[in-house]
Amino acid sequence: MKTINVTVWSEYPHGQSRDDHKKAYPNGLHEVIKDFLEKNKGLNVKVALFDEPSIGLSDEVLDNTDVLIWWAHVRHGQVTDEIVAKIKNKVLCGMGLILLHSAHFSKVFSAVIGTSGRLNWREASEKQRIWTTCPSHPIAKGIPETFVLEEEEMYGEYFDIPRPDDVVFMGWFEGGNVLRSGVTFTRGAGKVFYFQPGHETHKTFYNKHIQKIITNAVFWAAPDFWFKDISATHEKLPYEIIKEK
Amino acid sequence: MKTINVTVWSEYPHGQSRDDHKKAYPNGLHEVIKDFLEKNKGLNVKVALFDEPSIGLSDEVLDNTDVLIWWAHVRHGQVTDEIVAKIKNKVLCGMGLILLHSAHFSKVFSAVIGTSGRLNWREASEKQRIWTTCPSHPIAKGIPETFVLEEEEMYGEYFDIPRPDDVVFMGWFEGGNVLRSGVTFTRGAGKVFYFQPGHETHKTFYNKHIQKIITNAVFWAAPDFWFKDISATHEKLPYEIIKEK
Amino acid sequence: MKTINVTVWSEYPHGQSRDDHKKAYPNGLHEVIKDFLEKNKGLNVKVALFDEPSIGLSDEVLDNTDVLIWWAHVRHGQVTDEIVAKIKNKVLCGMGLILLHSAHFSKVFSAVIGTSGRLNWREASEKQRIWTTCPSHPIAKGIPETFVLEEEEMYGEYFDIPRPDDVVFMGWFEGGNVLRSGVTFTRGAGKVFYFQPGHETHKTFYNKHIQKIITNAVFWAAPDFWFKDISATHEKLPYEIIKEK
Amino acid sequence: MKTINVTVWSEYPHGQSRDDHKKAYPNGLHEVIKDFLEKNKGLNVKVALFDEPSIGLSDEVLDNTDVLIWWAHVRHGQVTDEIVAKIKNKVLCGMGLILLHSAHFSKVFSAVIGTSGRLNWREASEKQRIWTTCPSHPIAKGIPETFVLEEEEMYGEYFDIPRPDDVVFMGWFEGGNVLRSGVTFTRGAGKVFYFQPGHETHKTFYNKHIQKIITNAVFWAAPDFWFKDISATHEKLPYEIIKEK
Repeated sequence: MKTINVTVWSEYPHGQSRDDHKKAYPNGLHEVIKDFLEKNKGLNVKVALFDEPSIGLSDEVLDNTDVLIWWAHVRHGQVTDEIVAKIKNKVLCGMGLILLHSAHFSKVFSAVIGTSGRLNWREASEKQRIWTTCPSHPIAKGIPETFVLEEEEMYGEYFDIPRPDDVVFMGWFEGGNVLRSGVTFTRGAGKVFYFQPGHETHKTFYNKHIQKIITNAVFWAAPDFWFKDISATHEKLPYEIIKEK
Repeated sequence: MKTINVTVWSEYPHGQSRDDHKKAYPNGLHEVIKDFLEKNKGLNVKVALFDEPSIGLSDEVLDNTDVLIWWAHVRHGQVTDEIVAKIKNKVLCGMGLILLHSAHFSKVFSAVIGTSGRLNWREASEKQRIWTTCPSHPIAKGIPETFVLEEEEMYGEYFDIPRPDDVVFMGWFEGGNVLRSGVTFTRGAGKVFYFQPGHETHKTFYNKHIQKIITNAVFWAAPDFWFKDISATHEKLPYEIIKEK
Repeated sequence: MKTINVTVWSEYPHGQSRDDHKKAYPNGLHEVIKDFLEKNKGLNVKVALFDEPSIGLSDEVLDNTDVLIWWAHVRHGQVTDEIVAKIKNKVLCGMGLILLHSAHFSKVFSAVIGTSGRLNWREASEKQRIWTTCPSHPIAKGIPETFVLEEEEMYGEYFDIPRPDDVVFMGWFEGGNVLRSGVTFTRGAGKVFYFQPGHETHKTFYNKHIQKIITNAVFWAAPDFWFKDISATHEKLPYEIIKEK
Repeated sequence: MKTINVTVWSEYPHGQSRDDHKKAYPNGLHEVIKDFLEKNKGLNVKVALFDEPSIGLSDEVLDNTDVLIWWAHVRHGQVTDEIVAKIKNKVLCGMGLILLHSAHFSKVFSAVIGTSGRLNWREASEKQRIWTTCPSHPIAKGIPETFVLEEEEMYGEYFDIPRPDDVVFMGWFEGGNVLRSGVTFTRGAGKVFYFQPGHETHKTFYNKHIQKIITNAVFWAAPDFWFKDISATHEKLPYEIIKEK
């Protein structure tokens, strides 16, 4: 089995100044994600952080990433257009992309998906029930028909996304809202998964089902196929086609 | 403006022996649907009932139908395969099809959509909140972001449907369930809309938003284009193409 | 690695009375398909033929099939509705289905896909060029950007199918036609692949790219997940959901 | 009938220095497009050109555009990211977008669609045959099953696009290539149509079928619904939803 190189990117230490975030994730939620992923044979997991040089995503790091996990919240505007273009090109060439929670409003989301990612929102620590709406999908492997998160931030419809490939999960919130909570897209050779749960003050990333979903998504998004450079200008076709005329 | 011929088909008088159905719809719910549709200029609405000859759907009736509305509940098994094949062929040729509520389990649904239509279910007269998840869709015209039905039967995920063209509405139930409540499909030249609300003991079809949605769906599903006979065996291409070789 | 049970179904000995078919496939094309599939570790391949009892597809055979390959041509009408319903139910529960060539006009195709499968047609032994239009798809693994079949029957657009999940291959014909030649669908838990090449008088199934595509499709369509019985009537939800209300 | 405001944007006078372009379109191809569109009641057509201030697309122009037609070729890199972001936001809010020919490689295409738009290419003035692959689509209204352009530039698969909503047209080239030539996408409330024919040295835009397709596309893409500002940060929900909890 080929090793899959996973890079977990986070805005850390944003939020660490807030007691409620520190309480939920003393070392940042990226460390929790790294920890449960690393338990899987075949995954080589590294962390990249906003405050590192090149926001942790140098060419070398990106060139050694098969699947990029993106947890972002309030610093979307500080990510440069250059790095966004580089990530988008990598996705089109084959790199898997897993967008978590507030990443729906990141520049990367909009550049790759094509829409705004706009949704309704309420920070109310309310109960969310998640339903598996595509039980045969690899990302749903081992996930029950439904499970509960006792506390999440509410993200609800209307969610501005194009028709997804699959709606793997849907969310129900006790306050009266619903969301297409787990949706997949294909862009070039790259597989993309957006997954809504994961507010920084709730213990979501300790939930075993959430961990299983993200783990499944990593294996699903890992590329079998890479384009060399999809953004290169189009080229004349090889001779054997031209001569057919 | 061309007149649109609408046929409202129902299992009536099924259920009329039950007091709760008679209370909600003294003359059958099809009459309520006919009434609100008829208020629209350009719609010519007729009713067809299970207990009529050919279950109300003779060749002549079908040949004069632009949009067929199908409300069914417990007599699915009594609809013959012949009439199902005829309806399916008409849809592929262009006839619009609006499947209401329990029609998810009808033979027509499975033949046209291709799946079982299986879903979870609970008869509990509970509150349903509907969300508009595709606000720019013609079927959502004039519908608010969200509205409430005080009492509905619960239909919930997992709903066995293929990837729909659009998820126009999603449903939230107070008991903890969600559903892709309003979904569209294209089959041949025909447009198909499945819409979940409409239990026979609840006053759903009197709700102004429900009426508007079904009315919108009729105008959306009305065909501009008809195939002559899509099921006819394939034909040799006309001469001008063949000679190109 | 789990063994995948593959059943190759064919109309054989239809066509064997014709010299041109016997010349291309002395023992029937199903034997050629069986032969190249069997070279793959992990595939357990059996043949089922129209002229066997229950057209070769008893309950026992179907219950031991992970992926069904369907090559049919002119005897579509003789396949009973009962066996079609049984196959459809198996697909919805998870069985993979690979529909080859004239299977576009089979009852199984229409029941599972939902449309007529109508297309244009010309029997002219003309050159077909196939293009890979989804190079990152598992079915396209190892397939070049384009390759040629020196002789095929022409199947061309308009092809009456719903929006496919993916158009993996497109076909160009020297006579001036095009086709979405390799298309995928999801129905319930089942994966479906329709692939156009494979006329009984041409040597298509000896082509190494065609063999690779069908082999890839078998591995892709093999189920990881089965529903117990998707067509069973819907059931009341378990208690823990109901009590939430 | 509401008037539809159409803005035809072009790189003109690029190419006008070349004799072959001047020969085909003495005043630029945008003038030909404007002319045939203007013959339709209900269309108010204006031209915007690259060499005008703000490349012809000031806020005032965009605010008065219902459908934007984009013909671009070699100056993609000179369009600023600011104008691209503005156009994308307008599309998400509802503005129709029709991308012609080399616009597949424009910044607008990639920002809205999400992929690179990469395709194969050969400038060979070869014959193209176009097939209508979705005859019931409004853009195909009045278009025959197939028609020929005697001379076009070859654009062929693999075409790097996400799964389109509909493949309305497919192209066959005498040199052996195929393309999904006319494809639709939905992004936010905006409808998008990419259409491949239209090289500046060929008389494509004088073809009556091409004119009809672009005209149909304008009526199809004209918005019935606008979001106020889809890119605005998400907002707390109104009180009546929150209190439900």
